[in-house]
Amino acid sequence: MFQTIEWTPEGAVRLLDQRRLPAEEVYVECRDVAAVAHAIRTMQIRGAPAIGVAGAMGLALAAQTIRATCFEAFYAELLRQGEVLHRTRPTAVNLAWGIERMQRCAAAHKALPVAEIVQALIREAQQIREEDILGNRAIGAYGRGLIPDGATVLTHCNAGALATAGYGTALGVIRAAHAAGTRLSVWAGETRPFLQGARLTAWELQQDGIAVTLITDNMTGHLMQRGQIDLVIVGADRIARNGDVANKIGTYTLAVLAQAHGLPFYVAAPLSTLDLSLGDGMAIPIEERDPEEVTSWAGVRTAPVGVRAHNPVFDMTPHRYITAIITDRGVVRPPYDTGLAALAGQSVVTSTASLRDSVKSTHTP
Amino acid sequence: MFQTIEWTPEGAVRLLDQRRLPAEEVYVECRDVAAVAHAIRTMQIRGAPAIGVAGAMGLALAAQTIRATCFEAFYAELLRQGEVLHRTRPTAVNLAWGIERMQRCAAAHKALPVAEIVQALIREAQQIREEDILGNRAIGAYGRGLIPDGATVLTHCNAGALATAGYGTALGVIRAAHAAGTRLSVWAGETRPFLQGARLTAWELQQDGIAVTLITDNMTGHLMQRGQIDLVIVGADRIARNGDVANKIGTYTLAVLAQAHGLPFYVAAPLSTLDLSLGDGMAIPIEERDPEEVTSWAGVRTAPVGVRAHNPVFDMTPHRYITAIITDRGVVRPPYDTGLAALAGQSVVTSTASLRDSVKSTHTP
Repeated sequence: MFQTIEWTPEGAVRLLDQRRLPAEEVYVECRDVAAVAHAIRTMQIRGAPAIGVAGAMGLALAAQTIRATCFEAFYAELLRQGEVLHRTRPTAVNLAWGIERMQRCAAAHKALPVAEIVQALIREAQQIREEDILGNRAIGAYGRGLIPDGATVLTHCNAGALATAGYGTALGVIRAAHAAGTRLSVWAGETRPFLQGARLTAWELQQDGIAVTLITDNMTGHLMQRGQIDLVIVGADRIARNGDVANKIGTYTLAVLAQAHGLPFYVAAPLSTLDLSLGDGMAIPIEERDPEEVTSWAGVRTAPVGVRAHNPVFDMTPHRYITAIITDRGVVRPPYDTGLAALAGQSVVTSTASLRDSVKSTHTP
Repeated sequence: MFQTIEWTPEGAVRLLDQRRLPAEEVYVECRDVAAVAHAIRTMQIRGAPAIGVAGAMGLALAAQTIRATCFEAFYAELLRQGEVLHRTRPTAVNLAWGIERMQRCAAAHKALPVAEIVQALIREAQQIREEDILGNRAIGAYGRGLIPDGATVLTHCNAGALATAGYGTALGVIRAAHAAGTRLSVWAGETRPFLQGARLTAWELQQDGIAVTLITDNMTGHLMQRGQIDLVIVGADRIARNGDVANKIGTYTLAVLAQAHGLPFYVAAPLSTLDLSLGDGMAIPIEERDPEEVTSWAGVRTAPVGVRAHNPVFDMTPHRYITAIITDRGVVRPPYDTGLAALAGQSVVTSTASLRDSVKSTHTP
């Protein structure tokens, strides 16, 4: 079984290079923040929960290399290196969440010698990874009952073990239903331009022996019209307070189609994906990547030279299209604002800015 | 300027190999029906009107090679070779239309010596090609007023000069508006799996100096949500009596999205695309092609070995999603059944089977 990301006994971060799947199963070892930032930016590792863990482990690597003897200097450098990681990708809030949880951990141990803070941070990063897997198992347990026996399930992009520390969110629900004996089959949308569906989701499900059929993204309406899809389940990169969801480009189109055909549309994500600082989804930053991803594939140019292309890699699905959000603490149905806030309680990051301020004001001189 | 398909002075069919665009502009010469059937089946030439012309020219090639001295033997062989062409692709009705118009032409000249019938058929095929271009100019003239100044237009697949004998249907409307001074820009959906949008539409519009931006098919909902698309215009492979439209896979999804966002959704097609034998679109055969088109591109495999894939290459858009159908004889708005029938009058093929029967009963012993 592959490992998406792990901390090695030698104190490095080892991750599966997802750019080379499914052709090759190659691991990359990162020994400093720059290597982790590169892995996130180039999508060697991707998926909101996975890059949350990568951000945390990146800061553990940073902690190991910071040459500081007092907490203040150590913490200032930890914040700076956190910024380097944070700038790699803008949409998934889990990245900020992972980085900030590490910074909170450092601040909480400020009275200890720096060497001990470093050890605490390494433990914290490993803990974040473990919690992610447990959270996904919980998502699976809460969500599996939503998949009826005999169902044909459409998923988009990869919200699987590869998008998380393990097991997956949307694919976690599918795995849990399959393990519980529910008969199901999956349509995997290939998810242009990066083809996470074709390369990653099909690969994961094939390994698990779950029936999967690959389609291009533009086939989904046709399949719904012909009654060949029973429900849709996707992951999330950021969820606003009102339940609006940012996820891989194409998700919004699936939500509109599902509503037009009267099909349930589920989002599966841990609460670390929730951004309570945003009232609605229109404020979620939508990353744009190199148009080259659209005009070529695997070095083969598919469009004429010089043609302009557009490459927004996420979109925003308004909450009114979402039947339920399956989290690691339970299933939330509309109205989402009260439901999500209730599940989140006090333990959820309320805002990137406000958290950083509170950490600074509480723990630094 | 390229020529999609033409009859050469040497009596061959010369067509632009669309599989090799945009990387290479290579022409193929066909000297018999088998070569034309191969070109249609492998999509060296594609697009409903273009394969209608190819079917007609294929039968002109057949006529040249048939060794028969009496009409009955000649005509029986012409029908047989028409069947070979007809079987290449099932969805576009224009192919049947072109073949049958040639067979009608032969039957109409049955009193002449076979050598003269052959000459009549060669003229008829060239005439069909000329009429297609003129029809597209008419579509452009009727449709150009539907594009407001400053509009951003989404199109899908390729309904351009490459999909027809020249000028195009959906792109004909865009070309005519552009030529009339309407400022516009085009989003071209790449159109997986065959990438007609990326390879053909972007290439055509780039050559004409019309602003075009390439996107993946799953970006369209997002762009509509953000107000970046003003209208949608696509071609058609077959139109049923009630106005239901079969067109490239993904068209139906765009129609649902357009309706959800209150945007006009136009179909541009010559009346040769109309199949009055079908009451509605659910009876239109939807071609399925090799799943390999979904699992790899340009020889590069994108999905794991052994994964199942599904490859329906057309879908059906119910008439209630269509704002207007722009034909070579005028713009039809709902209710389509009366509007289409009125435009079609008596000169339109009423049914593949009934036409063949009537030709047989009238002209064969």
